[in-house]
Amino acid sequence: MEEHQFNPNGFVALITDFGLQDDYVGLMHAAVSRVNPALRIVNLCHEVMPGNIEAASFLLERDAPFFPEGTVFVCVVDPGVGSNRAMIAARIESHLYIAPDNGLLDPLLSAHPDHRVRRIENKALFGPAMSSTFHGRDIFAPVAAHLASDIPFEQVGPKAEEWVKGESLKPVLRGKQLHGKILWVDRFGNLVTNIDHHEIEGYDITVSRKVLRQVTTFSEGAIGETVWMIGSKGTVEIVVNNGSASKLLGIGFGHPVIAAKSA
Amino acid sequence: MEEHQFNPNGFVALITDFGLQDDYVGLMHAAVSRVNPALRIVNLCHEVMPGNIEAASFLLERDAPFFPEGTVFVCVVDPGVGSNRAMIAARIESHLYIAPDNGLLDPLLSAHPDHRVRRIENKALFGPAMSSTFHGRDIFAPVAAHLASDIPFEQVGPKAEEWVKGESLKPVLRGKQLHGKILWVDRFGNLVTNIDHHEIEGYDITVSRKVLRQVTTFSEGAIGETVWMIGSKGTVEIVVNNGSASKLLGIGFGHPVIAAKSA
Amino acid sequence: MEEHQFNPNGFVALITDFGLQDDYVGLMHAAVSRVNPALRIVNLCHEVMPGNIEAASFLLERDAPFFPEGTVFVCVVDPGVGSNRAMIAARIESHLYIAPDNGLLDPLLSAHPDHRVRRIENKALFGPAMSSTFHGRDIFAPVAAHLASDIPFEQVGPKAEEWVKGESLKPVLRGKQLHGKILWVDRFGNLVTNIDHHEIEGYDITVSRKVLRQVTTFSEGAIGETVWMIGSKGTVEIVVNNGSASKLLGIGFGHPVIAAKSA
Repeated sequence: MEEHQFNPNGFVALITDFGLQDDYVGLMHAAVSRVNPALRIVNLCHEVMPGNIEAASFLLERDAPFFPEGTVFVCVVDPGVGSNRAMIAARIESHLYIAPDNGLLDPLLSAHPDHRVRRIENKALFGPAMSSTFHGRDIFAPVAAHLASDIPFEQVGPKAEEWVKGESLKPVLRGKQLHGKILWVDRFGNLVTNIDHHEIEGYDITVSRKVLRQVTTFSEGAIGETVWMIGSKGTVEIVVNNGSASKLLGIGFGHPVIAAKSA
Repeated sequence: MEEHQFNPNGFVALITDFGLQDDYVGLMHAAVSRVNPALRIVNLCHEVMPGNIEAASFLLERDAPFFPEGTVFVCVVDPGVGSNRAMIAARIESHLYIAPDNGLLDPLLSAHPDHRVRRIENKALFGPAMSSTFHGRDIFAPVAAHLASDIPFEQVGPKAEEWVKGESLKPVLRGKQLHGKILWVDRFGNLVTNIDHHEIEGYDITVSRKVLRQVTTFSEGAIGETVWMIGSKGTVEIVVNNGSASKLLGIGFGHPVIAAKSA
Repeated sequence: MEEHQFNPNGFVALITDFGLQDDYVGLMHAAVSRVNPALRIVNLCHEVMPGNIEAASFLLERDAPFFPEGTVFVCVVDPGVGSNRAMIAARIESHLYIAPDNGLLDPLLSAHPDHRVRRIENKALFGPAMSSTFHGRDIFAPVAAHLASDIPFEQVGPKAEEWVKGESLKPVLRGKQLHGKILWVDRFGNLVTNIDHHEIEGYDITVSRKVLRQVTTFSEGAIGETVWMIGSKGTVEIVVNNGSASKLLGIGFGHPVIAAKSA
């Protein structure tokens, strides 16, 4: 097996549930820049639903391949902040990820067995201030900045032999049906599912007991018709041309979507 | 006529209707950085009303002059994404613009006859993945990054002899009246019109059949009084001191505003 | 007394009430980059409640220490824009601040008597366009960019002998009670007060006549229980585990919070 290398490229990508209305994201930027002003920060997403670890895992899994090799991902959806939950750092292929040990990284770790995982315990890499509620600013951002600069991954802390398991992002096979679910609802009301397009050749897609028609572009759907397509994350996406599938169907995150072999 | 030059300055400015709640803008940043990590990205606006091509054109027309020469503007308001609509790149004075061919760039092209327009067809400049719904990530961002780096404009694709016409951004002269409209409503409820301040010396401004008083600063308006001023885009702007003109008048995008010679 | 130096580090931090839905913040970025494309811009916060000068002062006071030395802060909460209100620049310790002279910087100036304050009057540092409503783009951003580059602080304008006083950010001692208030409500509904954790050893915290229990992490609170903790700004913060204290108590910005010696 080819050995992947991690060579930091100077990019730090942030995914959090902090929202953009407060100063929290700006303070994370400040904390990164204080360690190394040359680093570049990408706001991947800050509007993860508060506390929704699974949605954050889904974005990470689907979006990381679009980032340059050598990116450090900082993932802070952290309802247990300040408690005794641990923090972990993972090297997966050519990227690094740091997050609270609450299951957020588990789906990626399961999907990539050639990972390396360590606990984040080296306080020399933490920021100068320490709150019990904002480890994004006080721990994750500075640690990420060090790893994106010149601190080797191994210095972040000891090897982690285990970590908190998360929800699997994969749909479940029940008989001949693949039971998936909605893992993201976007601005337009499009419903993004976890059913990969590789798995559904010759399948019908059913949501709320209605079999949907497949289209390849938004504009193929009739006005007001709920249809499905292969979305930009490579999964089944339920959409309405010029409308919100979420509002029309009255459903959102977590709602089941079923793929069944066509008759 | 002096020949304008385009010398890329390393800046890519984004204007989209993607909103900031999802990961779409972050993925465009990633796609730009994957082509050239040294580029600088400015989020000009991502909250264009979904599908509102005219509002995007208006922002572009009024805002581009504030950017450094050599900026590449990426404009993605693209309800026809994935259909057979074309994509175009335009060189106008010292800037480049890329957008779907849906009328978005037409007002700029009409206003600057010394433009050069090409179709975006060179797939060597596209990103590695290709979805039918997210050309912002898969085409526009990487193409912009190449053009902002060292790829000459001519390599983007063949000359475009024609393109989709858009709504004119200019007010219409009917008799002695200039019929304009509201093209942007901002956070504060200020109503930004397309009536340029150069055109209205000695004119009265009327909206919803009420003639408004002109002021030069917000604070000159009485509390609750709807007034107009020359706004920061150089056009007639209808405002309420300490209040929302949009809410007070119950009007928004597209609403007519009339300038008539004072009696 | 040690003399603080200001050596620009190339960072410009923005705090405004412009919101992120319009193009205003993007235009400030453009204006900074037009002066010096090498500068780095941090969006500290753009969702200050419209016109809320006191909230902006509070963020500045609490957040500035997290930024690298040599940062220039641009603070635009400016209901009097276009009127004859002045503009000031202040050097405080190793940072620079520029803002309208409306009380915004006063709390920082009061807290740091070793400040230097000047009026912003050197029009050579302003941008090329001048509106009466958007000094963020036309004055503050370009002036900040010059100060973050190589223009000495003294060139911004003449020494300011006085400036508009603002609301004190400090709680008021009445008898044995410290009367504070809520100065920020965050995305999660957490209520951030101005009562510093240094001042309340052995004090009870009371809000809306209820004495609250202290916790050290969110998860120590029972579901639905309003508790207080020392928040990430180093002040008393009123929170609900997994809920919104703001919604539960029906209170927000400005609401009184009392610290009283425990019996």
